[in-house]
Amino acid sequence: MNIREIAEEIFSLRNNTPSRSGGAHEISVGSTIDRSTMPDQLPIDFSNLAQYIDHTILKADAKTEDIIKLCKEAEEYNFYSVCINPAYVSLARKHTKKAKVCAVVGFPLGANTSRIKLEETATALTDGASEIDMVINIAKLKDKEYEYIYNEIKQISECCHSQNALLKVIIETCYLTDKEKVIACLIAKKAGADFVKTSTGFGSGGATAQDIELMRLTVGPKMGVKASGGIKTKEDVVLMLRNGANRIGTSRALEFVSASTLN
Amino acid sequence: MNIREIAEEIFSLRNNTPSRSGGAHEISVGSTIDRSTMPDQLPIDFSNLAQYIDHTILKADAKTEDIIKLCKEAEEYNFYSVCINPAYVSLARKHTKKAKVCAVVGFPLGANTSRIKLEETATALTDGASEIDMVINIAKLKDKEYEYIYNEIKQISECCHSQNALLKVIIETCYLTDKEKVIACLIAKKAGADFVKTSTGFGSGGATAQDIELMRLTVGPKMGVKASGGIKTKEDVVLMLRNGANRIGTSRALEFVSASTLN
Repeated sequence: MNIREIAEEIFSLRNNTPSRSGGAHEISVGSTIDRSTMPDQLPIDFSNLAQYIDHTILKADAKTEDIIKLCKEAEEYNFYSVCINPAYVSLARKHTKKAKVCAVVGFPLGANTSRIKLEETATALTDGASEIDMVINIAKLKDKEYEYIYNEIKQISECCHSQNALLKVIIETCYLTDKEKVIACLIAKKAGADFVKTSTGFGSGGATAQDIELMRLTVGPKMGVKASGGIKTKEDVVLMLRNGANRIGTSRALEFVSASTLN
Repeated sequence: MNIREIAEEIFSLRNNTPSRSGGAHEISVGSTIDRSTMPDQLPIDFSNLAQYIDHTILKADAKTEDIIKLCKEAEEYNFYSVCINPAYVSLARKHTKKAKVCAVVGFPLGANTSRIKLEETATALTDGASEIDMVINIAKLKDKEYEYIYNEIKQISECCHSQNALLKVIIETCYLTDKEKVIACLIAKKAGADFVKTSTGFGSGGATAQDIELMRLTVGPKMGVKASGGIKTKEDVVLMLRNGANRIGTSRALEFVSASTLN
Protein backbone atom coordinates (compact mmCIF):
# COMPACT_ATOMS: atom_id res chain seq x y z
CA MET A 1 0.00 0.00 0.00
CA ASN A 2 1.83 3.12 -1.22
CA ILE A 3 0.07 5.87 0.69
CA ARG A 4 1.94 8.70 -0.99
CA GLU A 5 0.92 7.37 -4.39
CA ILE A 6 -2.72 7.20 -3.35
CA ALA A 7 -2.51 10.73 -1.96
CA GLU A 8 -1.09 12.00 -5.23
CA GLU A 9 -3.76 10.18 -7.20
CA ILE A 10 -6.62 11.52 -5.09
CA PHE A 11 -5.44 15.08 -4.68
CA SER A 12 -3.78 15.55 -8.05
CA LEU A 13 -6.27 18.17 -9.18
CA ARG A 14 -6.02 20.24 -6.03
CA ASN A 15 -3.57 22.84 -4.89
CA ASN A 16 -1.01 20.63 -3.20
CA THR A 17 0.62 23.07 -0.83
CA PRO A 18 2.96 21.45 1.66
CA SER A 19 1.10 20.24 4.70
CA ARG A 20 1.88 21.38 8.19
CA SER A 21 -0.10 18.55 9.66
CA GLY A 22 2.57 15.85 9.82
CA GLY A 23 2.80 12.39 8.36
CA ALA A 24 4.83 10.71 5.66
CA HIS A 25 2.70 11.97 2.80
CA GLU A 26 2.53 15.58 3.93
CA ILE A 27 3.56 17.02 0.59
CA SER A 28 0.45 15.95 -1.19
CA VAL A 29 -2.29 16.39 1.40
CA GLY A 30 -2.23 20.08 2.20
CA SER A 31 -4.40 19.84 5.31
CA THR A 32 -6.39 22.90 6.31
CA ILE A 33 -5.10 22.45 9.86
CA ASP A 34 -1.55 23.28 10.93
CA ARG A 35 -0.42 20.62 13.39
CA SER A 36 3.31 21.25 13.02
CA THR A 37 3.63 22.58 16.56
CA MET A 38 1.49 19.85 18.12
CA PRO A 39 3.18 17.03 20.02
CA ASP A 40 3.14 13.60 18.43
CA GLN A 41 0.17 11.53 19.58
CA LEU A 42 2.06 8.27 19.97
CA PRO A 43 3.76 8.31 23.38
CA ILE A 44 1.21 6.45 25.49
CA ASP A 45 1.21 6.03 29.27
CA PHE A 46 0.20 2.40 29.64
CA SER A 47 -0.06 2.74 33.41
CA ASN A 48 -3.11 4.97 33.01
CA LEU A 49 -5.42 3.65 30.34
CA ALA A 50 -8.53 5.49 31.56
CA GLN A 51 -7.31 8.80 30.12
CA TYR A 52 -7.58 7.40 26.58
CA ILE A 53 -11.10 6.04 26.89
CA ASP A 54 -14.34 7.44 25.53
CA HIS A 55 -16.80 5.74 27.89
CA THR A 56 -19.61 4.83 25.52
CA ILE A 57 -23.33 4.04 25.41
CA LEU A 58 -24.93 4.25 22.00
CA LYS A 59 -27.59 1.56 22.09
CA ALA A 60 -31.11 2.62 21.19
CA ASP A 61 -32.67 1.71 24.54
CA ALA A 62 -30.15 3.41 26.86
CA LYS A 63 -32.30 5.26 29.39
CA THR A 64 -31.81 8.45 31.39
CA GLU A 65 -30.51 6.48 34.37
CA ASP A 66 -28.00 4.68 32.12
CA ILE A 67 -26.63 7.99 30.84
CA ILE A 68 -26.34 9.41 34.35
CA LYS A 69 -24.57 6.25 35.52
CA LEU A 70 -22.18 6.53 32.54
CA CYS A 71 -21.35 10.12 33.50
CA LYS A 72 -20.75 9.24 37.14
CA GLU A 73 -18.43 6.42 36.13
CA ALA A 74 -16.52 8.70 33.76
CA GLU A 75 -15.97 11.18 36.59
CA GLU A 76 -14.97 8.50 39.06
CA TYR A 77 -12.58 6.59 36.80
CA ASN A 78 -11.16 9.64 34.98
CA PHE A 79 -12.23 8.55 31.54
CA TYR A 80 -11.54 11.11 28.84
CA SER A 81 -15.17 11.49 27.80
CA VAL A 82 -18.65 10.03 27.65
CA CYS A 83 -19.69 9.13 24.11
CA ILE A 84 -23.47 9.23 23.60
CA ASN A 85 -26.32 9.80 21.19
CA PRO A 86 -27.36 13.42 20.42
CA ALA A 87 -30.63 13.35 22.40
CA TYR A 88 -28.64 13.00 25.67
CA VAL A 89 -25.96 15.65 25.28
CA SER A 90 -27.68 18.21 27.54
CA LEU A 91 -28.32 15.57 30.18
CA ALA A 92 -24.73 14.33 30.07
CA ARG A 93 -23.35 17.86 30.25
CA LYS A 94 -25.25 18.38 33.52
CA HIS A 95 -23.71 15.26 35.01
CA THR A 96 -20.07 15.71 34.03
CA LYS A 97 -17.40 18.14 35.16
CA LYS A 98 -14.02 16.72 34.23
CA ALA A 99 -15.12 14.32 31.51
CA LYS A 100 -15.87 15.75 28.10
CA VAL A 101 -19.12 15.04 26.28
CA CYS A 102 -18.72 13.42 22.88
CA ALA A 103 -21.75 13.19 20.58
CA VAL A 104 -22.18 10.98 17.52
CA VAL A 105 -23.46 12.50 14.28
CA GLY A 106 -24.91 10.80 11.19
CA PHE A 107 -24.79 7.71 13.32
CA PRO A 108 -24.46 4.84 12.62
CA LEU A 109 -25.23 4.63 8.88
CA GLY A 110 -23.66 7.91 7.71
CA ALA A 111 -26.36 8.08 5.07
CA ASN A 112 -27.96 11.34 6.07
CA THR A 113 -27.57 14.52 4.01
CA SER A 114 -24.54 16.74 4.68
CA ARG A 115 -26.83 19.58 5.71
CA ILE A 116 -28.51 17.50 8.41
CA LYS A 117 -25.15 16.22 9.69
CA LEU A 118 -24.01 19.82 9.99
CA GLU A 119 -27.23 20.76 11.83
CA GLU A 120 -26.78 17.79 14.16
CA THR A 121 -23.24 18.94 14.89
CA ALA A 122 -24.29 22.51 15.63
CA THR A 123 -27.10 21.31 17.91
CA ALA A 124 -24.82 18.93 19.80
CA LEU A 125 -22.22 21.69 20.32
CA THR A 126 -24.89 24.09 21.56
CA ASP A 127 -26.14 21.36 23.93
CA GLY A 128 -22.65 21.01 25.42
CA ALA A 129 -20.65 18.52 23.37
CA SER A 130 -16.96 19.29 22.90
CA GLU A 131 -16.20 16.36 20.63
CA ILE A 132 -18.15 15.13 17.61
CA ASP A 133 -17.81 11.63 16.15
CA MET A 134 -19.37 11.77 12.67
CA VAL A 135 -19.83 8.95 10.20
CA ILE A 136 -18.79 9.58 6.59
CA ASN A 137 -21.14 8.71 3.74
CA ILE A 138 -19.69 5.27 3.10
CA ALA A 139 -21.49 4.77 -0.20
CA LYS A 140 -20.22 8.08 -1.60
CA LEU A 141 -16.68 7.01 -0.74
CA LYS A 142 -17.25 3.74 -2.61
CA ASP A 143 -18.74 5.77 -5.48
CA LYS A 144 -15.46 7.78 -5.50
CA GLU A 145 -17.31 11.03 -4.81
CA TYR A 146 -14.33 12.39 -2.90
CA GLU A 147 -15.32 16.03 -3.19
CA TYR A 148 -18.61 15.18 -1.46
CA ILE A 149 -16.77 13.43 1.40
CA TYR A 150 -14.26 16.28 1.65
CA ASN A 151 -16.86 19.06 1.65
CA GLU A 152 -19.00 17.29 4.25
CA ILE A 153 -16.07 16.80 6.63
CA LYS A 154 -14.72 20.29 6.02
CA GLN A 155 -18.04 22.01 6.86
CA ILE A 156 -18.42 19.96 10.02
CA SER A 157 -14.80 20.42 11.06
CA GLU A 158 -15.13 24.20 10.66
CA CYS A 159 -18.31 24.15 12.72
CA CYS A 160 -16.53 22.15 15.45
CA HIS A 161 -13.43 24.33 15.48
CA SER A 162 -15.49 27.52 15.66
CA GLN A 163 -16.70 26.21 19.03
CA ASN A 164 -13.30 24.87 20.12
CA ALA A 165 -14.57 21.34 19.70
CA LEU A 166 -12.80 18.40 18.07
CA LEU A 167 -14.00 16.33 15.14
CA LYS A 168 -13.48 12.59 14.82
CA VAL A 169 -14.33 11.04 11.47
CA ILE A 170 -15.66 7.48 11.55
CA ILE A 171 -14.70 5.68 8.35
CA GLU A 172 -16.41 2.33 9.19
CA THR A 173 -13.45 0.17 8.19
CA CYS A 174 -15.46 -3.07 8.00
CA TYR A 175 -17.02 -1.98 4.71
CA LEU A 176 -13.84 -0.60 3.11
CA THR A 177 -10.92 -1.96 1.13
CA ASP A 178 -7.46 -0.98 2.40
CA LYS A 179 -7.19 1.59 -0.37
CA GLU A 180 -10.57 3.06 0.60
CA LYS A 181 -9.43 3.24 4.24
CA VAL A 182 -6.34 5.20 3.18
CA ILE A 183 -8.39 7.52 0.96
CA ALA A 184 -10.94 8.17 3.72
CA CYS A 185 -8.15 9.00 6.19
CA LEU A 186 -6.36 11.29 3.73
CA ILE A 187 -9.57 13.18 2.96
CA ALA A 188 -10.43 13.49 6.66
CA LYS A 189 -6.95 14.88 7.35
CA LYS A 190 -7.06 17.28 4.45
CA ALA A 191 -10.52 18.50 5.49
CA GLY A 192 -9.28 19.40 8.96
CA ALA A 193 -10.61 16.54 11.10
CA ASP A 194 -8.77 15.97 14.37
CA PHE A 195 -9.15 12.20 14.53
CA VAL A 196 -9.93 9.30 12.25
CA LYS A 197 -11.93 6.54 13.93
CA THR A 198 -12.40 2.95 12.83
CA SER A 199 -15.96 1.89 13.55
CA THR A 200 -19.46 2.63 14.76
CA GLY A 201 -19.89 -0.70 16.51
CA PHE A 202 -23.08 -1.21 14.48
CA GLY A 203 -21.37 -2.43 11.29
CA SER A 204 -20.24 -5.93 10.38
CA GLY A 205 -16.92 -5.54 12.21
CA GLY A 206 -14.89 -3.40 14.61
CA ALA A 207 -11.33 -2.17 15.13
CA THR A 208 -8.37 -4.36 14.17
CA ALA A 209 -4.69 -3.84 14.93
CA GLN A 210 -3.93 -3.90 11.20
CA ASP A 211 -6.43 -1.13 10.47
CA ILE A 212 -5.11 1.03 13.30
CA GLU A 213 -1.57 0.60 12.00
CA LEU A 214 -2.65 1.53 8.47
CA MET A 215 -4.63 4.56 9.66
CA ARG A 216 -1.75 5.80 11.82
CA LEU A 217 0.66 5.37 8.92
CA THR A 218 -1.75 7.31 6.71
CA VAL A 219 -2.44 10.31 8.92
CA GLY A 220 1.03 10.62 10.45
CA PRO A 221 2.01 11.08 14.09
CA LYS A 222 0.24 14.36 14.89
CA MET A 223 -3.37 13.53 14.15
CA GLY A 224 -5.62 11.41 16.38
CA VAL A 225 -6.56 7.79 15.70
CA LYS A 226 -9.47 6.29 17.63
CA ALA A 227 -10.06 2.54 17.84
CA SER A 228 -13.65 1.47 18.47
CA GLY A 229 -15.98 -1.44 17.92
CA GLY A 230 -15.50 -4.80 19.61
CA ILE A 231 -12.99 -3.58 22.20
CA LYS A 232 -13.73 -5.64 25.28
CA THR A 233 -10.58 -6.26 27.29
CA LYS A 234 -7.53 -4.48 28.62
CA GLU A 235 -5.48 -6.53 26.15
CA ASP A 236 -7.58 -5.16 23.27
CA VAL A 237 -6.94 -1.61 24.47
CA VAL A 238 -3.20 -2.12 24.85
CA LEU A 239 -3.00 -3.76 21.41
CA MET A 240 -4.76 -0.80 19.78
CA LEU A 241 -2.60 1.76 21.59
CA ARG A 242 0.59 -0.12 20.68
CA ASN A 243 -0.46 -0.13 17.03
CA GLY A 244 -1.00 3.60 16.86
CA ALA A 245 -4.33 4.50 18.45
CA ASN A 246 -4.40 7.35 20.96
CA ARG A 247 -8.11 7.10 21.83
CA ILE A 248 -10.32 4.10 22.55
CA GLY A 249 -14.09 3.86 22.30
CA THR A 250 -15.67 1.09 24.33
CA SER A 251 -18.77 0.36 26.37
CA ARG A 252 -16.89 -2.25 28.41
CA ALA A 253 -14.25 -0.07 30.08
CA LEU A 254 -15.45 -0.72 33.63
CA GLU A 255 -14.68 -4.41 33.22
CA PHE A 256 -10.95 -3.80 32.86
CA VAL A 257 -10.18 -0.29 34.08
CA SER A 258 -11.50 -1.07 37.52
CA ALA A 259 -8.98 -3.90 37.61
CA SER A 260 -6.03 -1.94 36.22
CA THR A 261 -6.22 1.68 37.30
CA LEU A 262 -7.89 1.49 40.67
CA ASN A 263 -6.77 -1.79 42.16
CA MET B 1 -53.50 -6.96 27.64
CA ASN B 2 -56.43 -4.56 28.17
CA ILE B 3 -55.73 -1.88 25.60
CA ARG B 4 -58.59 0.38 26.66
CA GLU B 5 -57.31 0.34 30.24
CA ILE B 6 -53.82 1.30 29.10
CA ALA B 7 -55.24 4.07 26.94
CA GLU B 8 -57.19 5.46 29.88
CA GLU B 9 -54.13 5.26 32.12
CA ILE B 10 -51.88 7.04 29.61
CA PHE B 11 -54.27 9.70 28.41
CA SER B 12 -56.16 10.29 31.64
CA LEU B 13 -54.87 13.82 32.01
CA ARG B 14 -55.72 14.87 28.48
CA ASN B 15 -58.89 16.01 26.86
CA ASN B 16 -60.35 12.68 25.83
CA THR B 17 -62.66 13.74 23.05
CA PRO B 18 -64.12 10.84 21.09
CA SER B 19 -61.79 9.74 18.34
CA ARG B 20 -62.75 9.63 14.71
CA SER B 21 -59.80 7.45 13.89
CA GLY B 22 -61.31 4.01 14.51
CA GLY B 23 -60.30 1.14 16.74
CA ALA B 24 -61.67 -0.50 19.84
CA HIS B 25 -60.33 2.12 22.23
CA GLU B 26 -61.44 5.13 20.26
CA ILE B 27 -63.12 6.85 23.18
CA SER B 28 -59.92 7.47 25.05
CA VAL B 29 -57.43 8.29 22.33
CA GLY B 30 -58.81 11.38 20.64
CA SER B 31 -56.54 11.26 17.62
CA THR B 32 -55.78 14.53 15.86
CA ILE B 33 -56.63 12.81 12.56
CA ASP B 34 -60.17 12.01 11.46
CA ARG B 35 -60.10 8.62 9.76
CA SER B 36 -63.83 7.90 10.11
CA THR B 37 -64.45 8.13 6.39
CA MET B 38 -61.38 6.10 5.42
CA PRO B 39 -61.83 2.51 4.34
CA ASP B 40 -60.62 -0.19 6.68
CA GLN B 41 -57.05 -1.23 5.92
CA LEU B 42 -57.61 -4.92 6.39
CA PRO B 43 -59.04 -6.32 3.16
CA ILE B 44 -55.90 -7.55 1.41
CA ASP B 45 -55.58 -8.81 -2.16
CA PHE B 46 -53.29 -11.79 -1.72
CA SER B 47 -53.01 -12.28 -5.49
CA ASN B 48 -51.00 -9.06 -5.75
CA LEU B 49 -48.48 -8.76 -2.94
CA ALA B 50 -46.22 -6.25 -4.70
CA GLN B 51 -48.63 -3.39 -4.02
CA TYR B 52 -48.05 -3.73 -0.25
CA ILE B 53 -44.26 -3.71 -0.41
CA ASP B 54 -41.81 -0.94 0.45
CA HIS B 55 -38.80 -2.13 -1.56
CA THR B 56 -35.96 -1.37 0.82
CA ILE B 57 -32.22 -0.69 0.96
CA LEU B 58 -30.97 0.89 4.15
CA LYS B 59 -27.49 -0.58 4.57
CA ALA B 60 -24.65 1.88 5.04
CA ASP B 61 -22.73 0.85 1.93
CA ALA B 62 -25.58 0.90 -0.61
CA LYS B 63 -24.15 2.78 -3.59
CA THR B 64 -25.70 5.00 -6.25
CA GLU B 65 -26.04 2.06 -8.63
CA ASP B 66 -27.82 0.04 -5.92
CA ILE B 67 -30.37 2.82 -5.39
CA ILE B 68 -30.99 3.18 -9.12
CA LYS B 69 -31.43 -0.59 -9.43
CA LEU B 70 -33.88 -0.53 -6.51
CA CYS B 71 -35.93 2.17 -8.24
CA LYS B 72 -36.00 0.30 -11.55
CA GLU B 73 -37.16 -2.84 -9.79
CA ALA B 74 -39.88 -0.95 -7.95
CA GLU B 75 -41.18 0.41 -11.25
CA GLU B 76 -41.00 -2.95 -12.97
CA TYR B 77 -42.62 -5.00 -10.21
CA ASN B 78 -45.14 -2.36 -9.11
CA PHE B 79 -43.90 -2.13 -5.55
CA TYR B 80 -45.62 0.54 -3.50
CA SER B 81 -42.44 2.47 -2.74
CA VAL B 82 -38.68 2.46 -2.41
CA CYS B 83 -37.53 2.87 1.20
CA ILE B 84 -34.09 4.46 1.49
CA ASN B 85 -31.77 6.60 3.59
CA PRO B 86 -32.16 10.42 3.43
CA ALA B 87 -29.01 11.08 1.37
CA TYR B 88 -30.57 9.26 -1.61
CA VAL B 89 -34.06 10.77 -1.75
CA SER B 90 -33.29 13.17 -4.62
CA LEU B 91 -31.61 10.41 -6.59
CA ALA B 92 -34.50 7.99 -6.04
CA ARG B 93 -37.08 10.62 -6.97
CA LYS B 94 -35.35 11.04 -10.34
CA HIS B 95 -35.55 7.31 -11.00
CA THR B 96 -39.16 6.60 -10.00
CA LYS B 97 -42.47 7.55 -11.55
CA LYS B 98 -45.14 5.23 -10.17
CA ALA B 99 -43.36 4.12 -7.01
CA LYS B 100 -43.34 6.48 -4.07
CA VAL B 101 -40.15 7.46 -2.27
CA CYS B 102 -40.07 6.65 1.42
CA ALA B 103 -37.27 8.10 3.59
CA VAL B 104 -36.20 6.99 7.05
CA VAL B 105 -35.71 9.59 9.79
CA GLY B 106 -33.89 9.31 13.13
CA PHE B 107 -32.76 5.98 11.79
CA PRO B 108 -32.05 3.44 13.14
CA LEU B 109 -31.41 4.42 16.78
CA GLY B 110 -34.15 7.04 17.23
CA ALA B 111 -31.80 8.82 19.64
CA ASN B 112 -31.48 12.11 17.84
CA THR B 113 -33.10 15.32 19.10
CA SER B 114 -36.70 16.04 18.06
CA ARG B 115 -35.58 19.19 16.29
CA ILE B 116 -33.13 17.31 14.08
CA LYS B 117 -35.72 14.63 13.29
CA LEU B 118 -38.08 17.39 12.21
CA GLU B 119 -35.36 18.98 10.05
CA GLU B 120 -34.57 15.60 8.52
CA THR B 121 -38.25 15.16 7.70
CA ALA B 122 -38.57 18.58 6.10
CA THR B 123 -35.41 18.00 4.04
CA ALA B 124 -36.58 14.57 2.85
CA LEU B 125 -39.97 15.98 1.84
CA THR B 126 -38.31 18.83 -0.06
CA ASP B 127 -36.05 16.29 -1.77
CA GLY B 128 -39.08 14.33 -2.98
CA ALA B 129 -40.14 11.83 -0.32
CA SER B 130 -43.86 11.28 0.12
CA GLU B 131 -43.60 8.89 3.04
CA ILE B 132 -41.47 9.21 6.19
CA ASP B 133 -40.56 6.27 8.43
CA MET B 134 -39.32 7.79 11.69
CA VAL B 135 -37.96 6.02 14.75
CA ILE B 136 -39.31 7.02 18.15
CA ASN B 137 -36.96 7.79 21.01
CA ILE B 138 -37.07 4.30 22.52
CA ALA B 139 -35.35 5.28 25.74
CA LYS B 140 -37.81 8.13 26.40
CA LEU B 141 -40.67 5.65 25.98
CA LYS B 142 -39.02 3.38 28.53
CA ASP B 143 -38.51 6.41 30.77
CA LYS B 144 -42.30 7.02 30.48
CA GLU B 145 -41.74 10.46 28.94
CA TYR B 146 -44.92 10.14 26.92
CA GLU B 147 -45.35 13.85 26.29
CA TYR B 148 -41.92 13.88 24.66
CA ILE B 149 -42.85 10.97 22.38
CA TYR B 150 -46.21 12.56 21.58
CA ASN B 151 -44.81 16.01 20.81
CA GLU B 152 -42.07 14.61 18.61
CA ILE B 153 -44.50 12.53 16.55
CA LYS B 154 -47.07 15.32 16.38
CA GLN B 155 -44.58 17.88 15.00
CA ILE B 156 -43.33 15.44 12.40
CA SER B 157 -46.82 14.28 11.44
CA GLU B 158 -47.92 17.91 10.94
CA CYS B 159 -44.85 18.52 8.80
CA CYS B 160 -45.65 15.44 6.70
CA HIS B 161 -49.33 16.27 6.31
CA SER B 162 -48.58 19.86 5.30
CA GLN B 163 -46.81 18.32 2.28
CA ASN B 164 -49.45 15.61 1.68
CA ALA B 165 -46.98 13.00 2.86
CA LEU B 166 -47.63 10.09 5.21
CA LEU B 167 -45.87 9.35 8.49
CA LYS B 168 -45.00 5.86 9.68
CA VAL B 169 -43.80 5.56 13.27
CA ILE B 170 -41.24 2.83 13.96
CA ILE B 171 -41.61 1.61 17.53
CA GLU B 172 -38.74 -0.98 17.41
CA THR B 173 -40.74 -3.78 19.03
CA CYS B 174 -37.69 -5.91 19.88
CA TYR B 175 -36.79 -3.59 22.75
CA LEU B 176 -40.33 -3.13 24.13
CA THR B 177 -42.63 -4.97 26.50
CA ASP B 178 -46.14 -5.67 25.20
CA LYS B 179 -47.46 -2.80 27.29
CA GLU B 180 -44.83 -0.45 25.86
CA LYS B 181 -45.79 -1.57 22.35
CA VAL B 182 -49.43 -0.69 23.06
CA ILE B 183 -48.48 2.66 24.57
CA ALA B 184 -46.23 3.55 21.62
CA CYS B 185 -49.01 2.70 19.15
CA LEU B 186 -51.61 4.68 21.10
CA ILE B 187 -49.37 7.73 21.26
CA ALA B 188 -48.53 7.47 17.54
CA LYS B 189 -52.23 7.27 16.71
CA LYS B 190 -53.15 10.16 18.96
CA ALA B 191 -50.34 12.28 17.51
CA GLY B 192 -51.66 11.81 13.98
CA ALA B 193 -49.28 9.25 12.51
CA ASP B 194 -50.62 7.28 9.55
CA PHE B 195 -48.88 3.99 10.26
CA VAL B 196 -47.20 2.20 13.11
CA LYS B 197 -44.25 0.06 12.03
CA THR B 198 -42.55 -2.74 13.93
CA SER B 199 -38.81 -2.56 13.31
CA THR B 200 -35.77 -0.88 11.81
CA GLY B 201 -34.08 -4.15 10.86
CA PHE B 202 -31.02 -2.94 12.82
CA GLY B 203 -32.30 -3.93 16.27
CA SER B 204 -32.10 -7.28 18.03
CA GLY B 205 -35.25 -8.60 16.29
CA GLY B 206 -37.80 -7.96 13.55
CA ALA B 207 -41.53 -8.28 12.93
CA THR B 208 -43.52 -11.11 14.51
CA ALA B 209 -47.10 -12.18 13.81
CA GLN B 210 -47.94 -11.64 17.49
CA ASP B 211 -46.69 -8.06 17.44
CA ILE B 212 -48.57 -7.26 14.25
CA GLU B 213 -51.76 -8.65 15.78
CA LEU B 214 -51.26 -6.58 18.93
CA MET B 215 -50.48 -3.41 16.97
CA ARG B 216 -53.52 -3.85 14.72
CA LEU B 217 -55.73 -4.45 17.75
CA THR B 218 -54.31 -1.31 19.34
CA VAL B 219 -54.67 1.13 16.47
CA GLY B 220 -57.93 -0.21 15.05
CA PRO B 221 -58.86 -1.01 11.46
CA LYS B 222 -58.38 2.38 9.83
CA MET B 223 -54.75 3.14 10.58
CA GLY B 224 -51.78 1.55 8.79
CA VAL B 225 -49.60 -1.21 10.26
CA LYS B 226 -46.27 -1.95 8.60
CA ALA B 227 -44.34 -5.15 9.26
CA SER B 228 -40.58 -4.93 8.73
CA GLY B 229 -37.36 -6.57 9.84
CA GLY B 230 -36.49 -10.17 8.99
CA ILE B 231 -39.17 -10.59 6.30
CA LYS B 232 -37.56 -12.90 3.76
CA THR B 233 -40.17 -15.09 2.09
CA LYS B 234 -43.61 -14.91 0.52
CA GLU B 235 -44.87 -16.93 3.49
CA ASP B 236 -43.55 -14.26 5.88
CA VAL B 237 -45.40 -11.58 3.92
CA VAL B 238 -48.68 -13.51 3.84
CA LEU B 239 -48.41 -14.25 7.57
CA MET B 240 -47.94 -10.57 8.37
CA LEU B 241 -50.80 -9.47 6.13
CA ARG B 242 -53.13 -12.13 7.60
CA ASN B 243 -52.30 -10.89 11.09
CA GLY B 244 -53.19 -7.29 10.38
CA ALA B 245 -50.36 -5.65 8.46
CA ASN B 246 -51.22 -3.64 5.36
CA ARG B 247 -47.65 -2.70 4.39
CA ILE B 248 -44.46 -4.74 4.30
CA GLY B 249 -40.88 -3.52 4.44
CA THR B 250 -38.30 -5.91 3.02
CA SER B 251 -35.05 -5.90 1.07
CA ARG B 252 -35.74 -9.41 -0.22
CA ALA B 253 -38.93 -8.81 -2.24
CA LEU B 254 -37.42 -9.79 -5.59
CA GLU B 255 -36.79 -13.28 -4.30
CA PHE B 256 -40.47 -14.04 -3.90
CA VAL B 257 -42.44 -11.45 -5.86
CA SER B 258 -40.77 -12.44 -9.11
CA ALA B 259 -41.98 -15.95 -8.41
CA SER B 260 -45.52 -15.06 -7.37
CA THR B 261 -46.69 -12.00 -9.28
CA LEU B 262 -44.89 -12.30 -12.57
CA ASN B 263 -44.58 -16.03 -13.20
